[in-house]
Formats: sequence, structure tokens, C-alpha cells
Amino acid sequence: MKYEKYKSSLPYSYTLGITLTIELLKKHPEDVLDIYYHSSFNGEGKDIVDSICRKIGIEPIDNDKIFNIFASKENVYCIGVFKKFDSTVEKDANHIVLVNPSNAGNLGTIIRTSCGFNLDNLVIIKPAVDIFDPKTIRASMGAIFNINFSLFDSFEDYAKDNNHHFYPFMLKAKAKLKDTKFVSPFSLIFGNEATGLPDSFLEYDSVIIPHAKTIDSLNLPIAVSIAIYSATTNDF
Amino acid sequence: MKYEKYKSSLPYSYTLGITLTIELLKKHPEDVLDIYYHSSFNGEGKDIVDSICRKIGIEPIDNDKIFNIFASKENVYCIGVFKKFDSTVEKDANHIVLVNPSNAGNLGTIIRTSCGFNLDNLVIIKPAVDIFDPKTIRASMGAIFNINFSLFDSFEDYAKDNNHHFYPFMLKAKAKLKDTKFVSPFSLIFGNEATGLPDSFLEYDSVIIPHAKTIDSLNLPIAVSIAIYSATTNDF
Repeated sequence: MKYEKYKSSLPYSYTLGITLTIELLKKHPEDVLDIYYHSSFNGEGKDIVDSICRKIGIEPIDNDKIFNIFASKENVYCIGVFKKFDSTVEKDANHIVLVNPSNAGNLGTIIRTSCGFNLDNLVIIKPAVDIFDPKTIRASMGAIFNINFSLFDSFEDYAKDNNHHFYPFMLKAKAKLKDTKFVSPFSLIFGNEATGLPDSFLEYDSVIIPHAKTIDSLNLPIAVSIAIYSATTNDF
Repeated sequence: MKYEKYKSSLPYSYTLGITLTIELLKKHPEDVLDIYYHSSFNGEGKDIVDSICRKIGIEPIDNDKIFNIFASKENVYCIGVFKKFDSTVEKDANHIVLVNPSNAGNLGTIIRTSCGFNLDNLVIIKPAVDIFDPKTIRASMGAIFNINFSLFDSFEDYAKDNNHHFYPFMLKAKAKLKDTKFVSPFSLIFGNEATGLPDSFLEYDSVIIPHAKTIDSLNLPIAVSIAIYSATTNDF
């Protein structure tokens, strides 16, 4: 087998399933290495994949073995293999900034939501979960192929030479989300799932999404989504 | 072993991990059947569990075997076993209504969020994923022990003799969320992850959360959370 079980150090990754593979083929045809069909793959979706592959000169491979390297509860009959690609955020666009996100499903869900509200520039501060992890790609529902993203070693690296208005979301913040008017270009900044943002971020215009004391905190993708919705409500 | 691997037909369920088990002990002490400690269980949290158990007359059991029936990537050193309990929503409170939710993680995340915004009355229309599934309980972060819930066989059963203002969330709806003023007592109604709500719900004051065409839809817990935040913004 030419390809191995996914790990972050590999130069390639996978789209598992037909929807994700179609998004890959449409948005990043130049990065597609191979398309695999399972012998049980059939039906309407297959025509679409077939036709895009023909257009971009890719010959789908019938081979069931590659499907065994993914332990998945859901049935997957089509896999795309693609070269990991570079990406850079647009300098003057609004940014979502995730500081040390640690969960692949959360990262994917955040990408899907921000894309859904036209906030398609994502900054990730390392260490962070792998944006190319097939679990991230799946949770993003393919939105990862529609966004720009940049990785930085530290928030300081991102913040220098940067004209954005920083809005860190923190439980210790004073300003409530509903009272905050976001000035563009803005950066909505969120900390790690377990630890949040360090107190040093209180020097910026920090924001709190107030909630009842019955819960400790909102789940990260939920907090990010509520913030995104509030910041973009007038655009939709 | 007295207890089996979880399945919906069992009269009991499990809290996996210390945080969930503490929530169980605090909120539903009368339903606790047993508390298990793994031989590696140690540290600060143990004192809390010990002390609550003493107060309510439960003797924690040292037994590593029960931990084997849960295939979990995360380390779990403390398990609570509890009798499934009955619950009923408050008739005049605001309700969250989930029609045929199918994913345990989603259901748990929704419970956590609605609890976080004091919407602690949840209606579930069957068929639906099991609210007592340990995956639901885990995703709820224990909030399941803080809410009231009712199950109905059909939406019609719920709707009869009901004075709530129904707000179904649908992609086909005309009114945007930002233009909607929610009149209490309200029911925020959401469909299944894959299929949404049937067109018949358009007869009520249906609401849309507008989003960019780059994505097909918002993930269910995200849509519910944005709706909840909007409907309760003035309370926080």
C-alpha cells in the first residue's frame, strides 16, 4: 500500500466519504493525489466524482484495501488523498484566532461555522491540533477547503505588525458580548478548551458571553459560534 | 460483574469520570446505585467524591473490572452507576424542543448550552437518541442532572393542550433570527441533524439563521446555541 494510516507527520491527508471528496475535488483539484473507490461504491454521488475526476485528469482507483486503514463506524466508500497545502490569511480581513485548540472535532466545527458566516480567515496559535487531521476535515464538512489559514508559533508573532482590533473571549472579561460593537478589521480570539486564554489578554478589549452558574463554561465551538453570529448579524 | 456494557434497554446508566460523577452525586443522590474507584484513582477530586458518598451513605467500591467495559480513549478512574430517572418539563417554562435528534454528542452539547442559558426544560420527540447514553451524559458535562425533560411520541402529542409560542428553526423560514422577538412561554423547535423539520412546521412562526451559501447548513448544536443566545440575550 502506497499510503499509510494518517499521522500528522505525513505530507498528505485524506477525505473520508463522498461529500468531503467532492469538496476536495472542486476546491483543491491541484492537490489531489489519488481517489479511491470501494467495490460497494455506487449511486448518484459516484457520477459527480467520476465527472470531476475526468475533467481534471484523475483516474479513480478501485481498491478496497485503503479503506481498512480507517476504523470508522460510518460507511465510507470513497476516499480522496491530497497533498497538504499552504495557506495564508488575508491581512485586512476579519480573523478568527484560536490559541492552542486541542480537539480535532472542535476545530472542524469552528471552521464550518466561521465559513458559514463568511469569516473565512483562521489563525491558529501553536501548539495546536492538526488542521489536516481527517477528523478535523470531516467535522468541517469540507469547509476547510474554502478558508484561508495561518499558523503562528506564538500570539506575539501574530500580533506584531498587525492592525486588527483584538477581542479576546474570556470568563474574566468585563464587557458583555451584547454590549460590544466590533470594529473591523477584528480578531475574535479564543483560548484552549480546558484552560481558556491567559490573563495577559485582559489588556485588550476582552469580551464575556455571560451564562448561568449551573455550567462551568460553554463548549468551545458553541462560544465561538455565538461570538461569530453576534459579530456578523448585520451582514446577513 | 453485576453491571453490563451500556445499552438503551438497561434500567441504569453510567457517569464516566470524576466531574460527571460529582454532578450525579450532588444532583441525583437518590438514584445512585454504586460508585466504583479504579486502583489508580487518587488526588484532590477523590476527597470530594469520598465526602459526598459518606454524607449520602454510599460505600465506594474498589474494582478495576468495570472500567474494562468502557472503551475510552480518555482515562477514567471513577464511575457512577445510577438508576434512570423520570423527569417532566415545567408546563409554563420556555422549552427547547428537539424533533428526532440522532446524535448523542449533539444532544449532550445542547443540554449543556441550554442549561447555561437557564433554558432548563427540554422536550424530545421520538424516535430519538437515548438521553441516558453515557455519551450524551458526557457531552452534557453533567448538565443532564440539572434539567427537566419530557419525551413524546409525536409533535402533535406535545402540541395539544399547549399554550407555547412555537418557533421552528428551518432553512425555508421567512423570518430572520435577528428580526424575531420571542414571546414567552416559547418553544424553540429544531429538527433532525440530517433532515431538519418537515414543511408542516412552516405554519408556525418559523425562523431562519441566515448563513453563507458556502456551507449547506449549520451543525445542530451550533444552530440551537445561536438561537438560545438570541432568545435569552436580555436575561444575561
